[in-house]
Amino acid sequence: MLQKEQWDGFKGRLWKEEVNTRDFIQNNYKPYDGDSSFLADPTEATNKLWGKLQELQKEERAKGGVLDMDTDIVSGITSHGPGYIDESAKDLEKVVGLQTDKPLKRAFMPYGGIKMAEEACSTYGYEPNKELHKIFTEYHKTHNQGVFDVYTPEIRQARRNKIITGLPDTYGRGRIVGDYRRVALYGIDFLMEEKAKDHANCGDGTMTDEIIRQREEIFNQYRALADMKKMAASYGYDISEPAKNAREAVQWLYFGYLAAVKTQNGAAMSVGRISTFLDIYIQRDLENGTLTEDEAQELIDHMVMKFRMVKFARVPSYNQLFSGDPVWATLEVAGMGVDGRSMVTKTDFRFLHTLENMGPSPEPNLTVLYSPNLPENFKKYAAEISINTSSVQYENDDVMKPVWGDDYSICCCVSATQTGKEMQFFGARANLAKCLLYAINGGVDEKTLVQVGPEYKPITSEYLDYDEVMKKYDVMMDWLAGIYVNSLNIIQYMHDKYYYEAAEMALIDTDVRRTFATGIAGFSHVVDSLSAIKYAKVKTIRNEDGIVVDYDVTGDFPRYGNDDDRADDIAVELLRTFLTKLKKRHTYRDSEATTSILTITSNVVYGKATGSMPDGRKAGEPLAPGANPSYGAEDSGLLASLNSVAKLPYEWALDGISNTQTINPEALGHDEGERVTSLVNVLDGYFAQGSHHLNVNVFGKEKLIDAMEHPEKEEYANFTIRVSGYAVKFIDLTKEQQMDVISRTFHGAM
Amino acid sequence: MLQKEQWDGFKGRLWKEEVNTRDFIQNNYKPYDGDSSFLADPTEATNKLWGKLQELQKEERAKGGVLDMDTDIVSGITSHGPGYIDESAKDLEKVVGLQTDKPLKRAFMPYGGIKMAEEACSTYGYEPNKELHKIFTEYHKTHNQGVFDVYTPEIRQARRNKIITGLPDTYGRGRIVGDYRRVALYGIDFLMEEKAKDHANCGDGTMTDEIIRQREEIFNQYRALADMKKMAASYGYDISEPAKNAREAVQWLYFGYLAAVKTQNGAAMSVGRISTFLDIYIQRDLENGTLTEDEAQELIDHMVMKFRMVKFARVPSYNQLFSGDPVWATLEVAGMGVDGRSMVTKTDFRFLHTLENMGPSPEPNLTVLYSPNLPENFKKYAAEISINTSSVQYENDDVMKPVWGDDYSICCCVSATQTGKEMQFFGARANLAKCLLYAINGGVDEKTLVQVGPEYKPITSEYLDYDEVMKKYDVMMDWLAGIYVNSLNIIQYMHDKYYYEAAEMALIDTDVRRTFATGIAGFSHVVDSLSAIKYAKVKTIRNEDGIVVDYDVTGDFPRYGNDDDRADDIAVELLRTFLTKLKKRHTYRDSEATTSILTITSNVVYGKATGSMPDGRKAGEPLAPGANPSYGAEDSGLLASLNSVAKLPYEWALDGISNTQTINPEALGHDEGERVTSLVNVLDGYFAQGSHHLNVNVFGKEKLIDAMEHPEKEEYANFTIRVSGYAVKFIDLTKEQQMDVISRTFHGAM
Repeated sequence: MLQKEQWDGFKGRLWKEEVNTRDFIQNNYKPYDGDSSFLADPTEATNKLWGKLQELQKEERAKGGVLDMDTDIVSGITSHGPGYIDESAKDLEKVVGLQTDKPLKRAFMPYGGIKMAEEACSTYGYEPNKELHKIFTEYHKTHNQGVFDVYTPEIRQARRNKIITGLPDTYGRGRIVGDYRRVALYGIDFLMEEKAKDHANCGDGTMTDEIIRQREEIFNQYRALADMKKMAASYGYDISEPAKNAREAVQWLYFGYLAAVKTQNGAAMSVGRISTFLDIYIQRDLENGTLTEDEAQELIDHMVMKFRMVKFARVPSYNQLFSGDPVWATLEVAGMGVDGRSMVTKTDFRFLHTLENMGPSPEPNLTVLYSPNLPENFKKYAAEISINTSSVQYENDDVMKPVWGDDYSICCCVSATQTGKEMQFFGARANLAKCLLYAINGGVDEKTLVQVGPEYKPITSEYLDYDEVMKKYDVMMDWLAGIYVNSLNIIQYMHDKYYYEAAEMALIDTDVRRTFATGIAGFSHVVDSLSAIKYAKVKTIRNEDGIVVDYDVTGDFPRYGNDDDRADDIAVELLRTFLTKLKKRHTYRDSEATTSILTITSNVVYGKATGSMPDGRKAGEPLAPGANPSYGAEDSGLLASLNSVAKLPYEWALDGISNTQTINPEALGHDEGERVTSLVNVLDGYFAQGSHHLNVNVFGKEKLIDAMEHPEKEEYANFTIRVSGYAVKFIDLTKEQQMDVISRTFHGAM
Repeated sequence: MLQKEQWDGFKGRLWKEEVNTRDFIQNNYKPYDGDSSFLADPTEATNKLWGKLQELQKEERAKGGVLDMDTDIVSGITSHGPGYIDESAKDLEKVVGLQTDKPLKRAFMPYGGIKMAEEACSTYGYEPNKELHKIFTEYHKTHNQGVFDVYTPEIRQARRNKIITGLPDTYGRGRIVGDYRRVALYGIDFLMEEKAKDHANCGDGTMTDEIIRQREEIFNQYRALADMKKMAASYGYDISEPAKNAREAVQWLYFGYLAAVKTQNGAAMSVGRISTFLDIYIQRDLENGTLTEDEAQELIDHMVMKFRMVKFARVPSYNQLFSGDPVWATLEVAGMGVDGRSMVTKTDFRFLHTLENMGPSPEPNLTVLYSPNLPENFKKYAAEISINTSSVQYENDDVMKPVWGDDYSICCCVSATQTGKEMQFFGARANLAKCLLYAINGGVDEKTLVQVGPEYKPITSEYLDYDEVMKKYDVMMDWLAGIYVNSLNIIQYMHDKYYYEAAEMALIDTDVRRTFATGIAGFSHVVDSLSAIKYAKVKTIRNEDGIVVDYDVTGDFPRYGNDDDRADDIAVELLRTFLTKLKKRHTYRDSEATTSILTITSNVVYGKATGSMPDGRKAGEPLAPGANPSYGAEDSGLLASLNSVAKLPYEWALDGISNTQTINPEALGHDEGERVTSLVNVLDGYFAQGSHHLNVNVFGKEKLIDAMEHPEKEEYANFTIRVSGYAVKFIDLTKEQQMDVISRTFHGAM
């Protein structure tokens, strides 16, 4: 059993025998059920640094979204010398480390795709380096090029016609959360020794392709760990040994995360579940008198400031999908242990408190792992923060814990993975709404009028027959599931080949579990359309070539979002059917196929490409986001809406079911006390039904309209709202997306 | 069916329906059974160019072996502008195209391994480019790095102790012969169209790793074809369409080969079987009066001159293994068709005639596909060339044809592959001699005294017991076969990943057959040692630790090489046993395991690393090359020696059984006529027994000694000898290798 002086006072055995952060946490954390009164205000250093950073952010916005950009250095763990928020006041920073040598300067990351990296430069007026162009065109193939070399014409056409969308064939896949806590708990040297042992024990000597690939990956991970030491050394820290106090623990952990964001510009670069872990170090220092509460909060504030600064150079098409420059630096607090103890610590409060000390912010993407059993004081404090900042999301710990245990992290917007034991092969969405229209039109795209799907017999009748539609929809979904899964197989293969996440995987067990995370777009519109066909009369409107381009609905029909089983049953069946079609297929590295119903802000782009639907949604209008009921479909109040979504079994959409709701403050109560109680009741009730996720916004439509019209007002500078799966500064959204948010249902009644 | 005006006068259908060069040849070639009297002397242009090239070669030797070297340009199909032997007299060259922009200037090829590429530079006093170092260290991993990242400690140790040797983990694997004739017959555009179709038909839509890998490979091939067009255009030729005459056919074909040697520095870069094919074009031009015999010979001479110029930048360790700078630009003539017709054409004579027009030369590695049924006139001419130049090797068409058909090429020294339908995963040798010593010493290396093999129970008796030795040898061979095959699995995987042969594979069928070519070293010494243990008394001599380091043999025993079944049966069983142990294992891409008994000049390096053997060979002495009997073991004359080798079934060593013999001219006869007849008789007799290969040298020991002592004599400048599997200029061998050659058996009697 390993013994380290840095571990003095820490209990437990197993985590000293093997890399096992969870065991360390469970043996050492101290649950906290008190209230928020202990929390400290920002220190002077925090105020100065945050002030400086806000200036830089203002400057960044004034320059069109990008403050500065690298064009000559290929980003890597050790590619840059040390950088600071304020070069002239380095000692203010209790947590050091930047992605490049300057704050908010975006790194050049060509491994995903050189064209994309160059487009990101030129979009913001930077000149891409010609020599690097040559290197990543002639000498080193990129992920992107590999993917397109292998795509079939059918896949290309499906992608072009946007029935499969937002595939990470133009950006890193993300969705891998390194267990960055390991750097603090064990130090790099031990982690390297363990990876060396894994290399020695990888395979029985028979060198199959699988074993060869894995042996090479382990070696790359080992090298990444060595590089992390070098990077830390450039900031004056030796991270070869475990962290010996809270400050080092925060710093070591952050260096691990920094290595990840220096090497990968994945769609999501989540931080993971770190609060309870860090609390153990903070608590030890508080108890032995080497740290004050002010200093503890300062550490958390400074670390969070770093997470607020993570930026990537993105291309316009990416920004259209995922507006407001998100990186999904998702960070969880709370949750319950499998032993029934709450995992809330003072540090969980401290993380939420950063939204007060430094104001609202989209990043890190703060996520409360919710259970009605959490301490009441914590639930109230979280609700209070939600009401005041609209910057927090909630996920149901009680449904996730049975699947992922009590040490999972959210690896993107809402998707859970076991920390340090799992990775996701991520891949955007299949547009099931469009697929329904393909079923009706025999594979012809209703917008481009091109034959995209297989040339099955179209529906020729004037009125749609439910059974006929369902039969055709089933085979068309089967086709869609096929090209979707196979596109992803290609993408994941090429990502491993050309853009392997060595730094992240170095902090994950070698014997990793892999899920194959798919997603559904247009969910509510399919459900309502099928309901219209079943319960009302839907007449087809055809163009001169007989392609159905619109629908005329006579009569009323039940809609998803009103707690009406007639519609909600269709929703459940739709999910079951598509998942079954995904699961039966070959997936890369025998990963486990899962699916999700979440669309982020991409619902606007998806909607633009999707024709009119039988539910009354017109061509080009945004789809409802995630698993949300369609705009205007909900007319039975917030609770009925939540009840409908709650019927979707989480077990069938393990990658997440996202629901975003906006509530008028008045609907919650007349004063803050009432509102907090009321929101806690809503959350308790919703999650008790087994639902998965809720974004909570508390404001009225008027505020959004005012912010859209007067973005210059000081009060809107950091005005943050929750959209599907993440938070965003409202003024950073495109006008189109702002309009979409405004048009969504505002619940004025419970 | 495709019709092209360039094909006017050509017969047949199938080759117009699909890419099928063999069908074209069989339908159009004209066998020639006349004598050599039609052959033309070199033209003035040939003499001038060859004179210039010889000057350059002299300069090259004077500069220590390398005339010039690239350090700043990464070699690729289009990396260099056009280059000529003599810039001031470009029009002399009837066949244009150089590997770089200057004659004999060696290209910088880092994909196999940047350290190796740099060592090749620095060895010859060139400064490697620092930027390229960074690119191929930080940005692009090389084949070499990939291999070493994955090797196990056991493999590393086996390699370091030289029980597996000469693995292509430090150089390209080579052994792939593109069907360069396709460029001439079809032009690039059609070949690109066909590859595009293959891409479309690769897989049924389910994207497994195998299919993804292959789809990407096809795309890379497609790109390589496009680059070939660009390269040819830089020389002023449009090769998108088929060649319309002999000159274009020679030029188009050579451009295909040039693309290969610009992108790969494989151990062997063979040309293939091109003579009968080119004869069809030459014959058509001769018949329609657009070409004279002088011009026809000039085309062949100039093309051969280009093959003589192919050079790679090699490292000293490579040169030790394969002395004299060989590239195995192996080129076949003769052979019989499956329909019984001889495939000898006038152009087969023309290729052999280049050894007269431009003197002897190691490259191209001219190989006669021999059958006793070949036209007598051709057999005599080949024998005459052999006697005068010692530059030709013979392989048994009658044993190869049943396995590979009548359009195979030799892809290295002696190994056959179906042209355009097959590739080899090549991998050097297992030292079976050393393995026998490991069996005796329980896995301890007899030279380094390190435990390398598994720690099995060693032999502890004073005298060796045959049954005990065989039992232990069997399990030790099983271990050796395991690490050998698995090292090769790693090497082949990484070669495909980091150094894929797109240009060569572009000229091979997409649905390619893959063999997994292993090899045996130390064959004769194992056979004789086992015979000594069985038939004489072998006493072990141990060091202070009990490790057997020498042997004392009492009594006589039969030796391999004397047509004595007692020894030869052991040889046959040894081959069968090792092959069985190879074949039972997993091989990369389900390739077919084959083996060979050929060592090239590496027998010297292998011998140095191998301790004393029970057959009387002392530690450090060279092993006998290939399947040759041990030096001094043969005391029954040439024919008895050939008979012993002929007993080894070719079917069990499909990768080749190499035999090299040196005959005193006097042993063959008193004048040229007698000698020719006599050599033809030897060849007829030897090959009629089913043996595979023979290198024929005709000179006496005195000449070698004189050449070693007086390398400056003009007559030795191009003095070429056949060593195991290739030819070499004697004065380019190291002193050690010269001594080895001199010590070999010279047959003074038949």
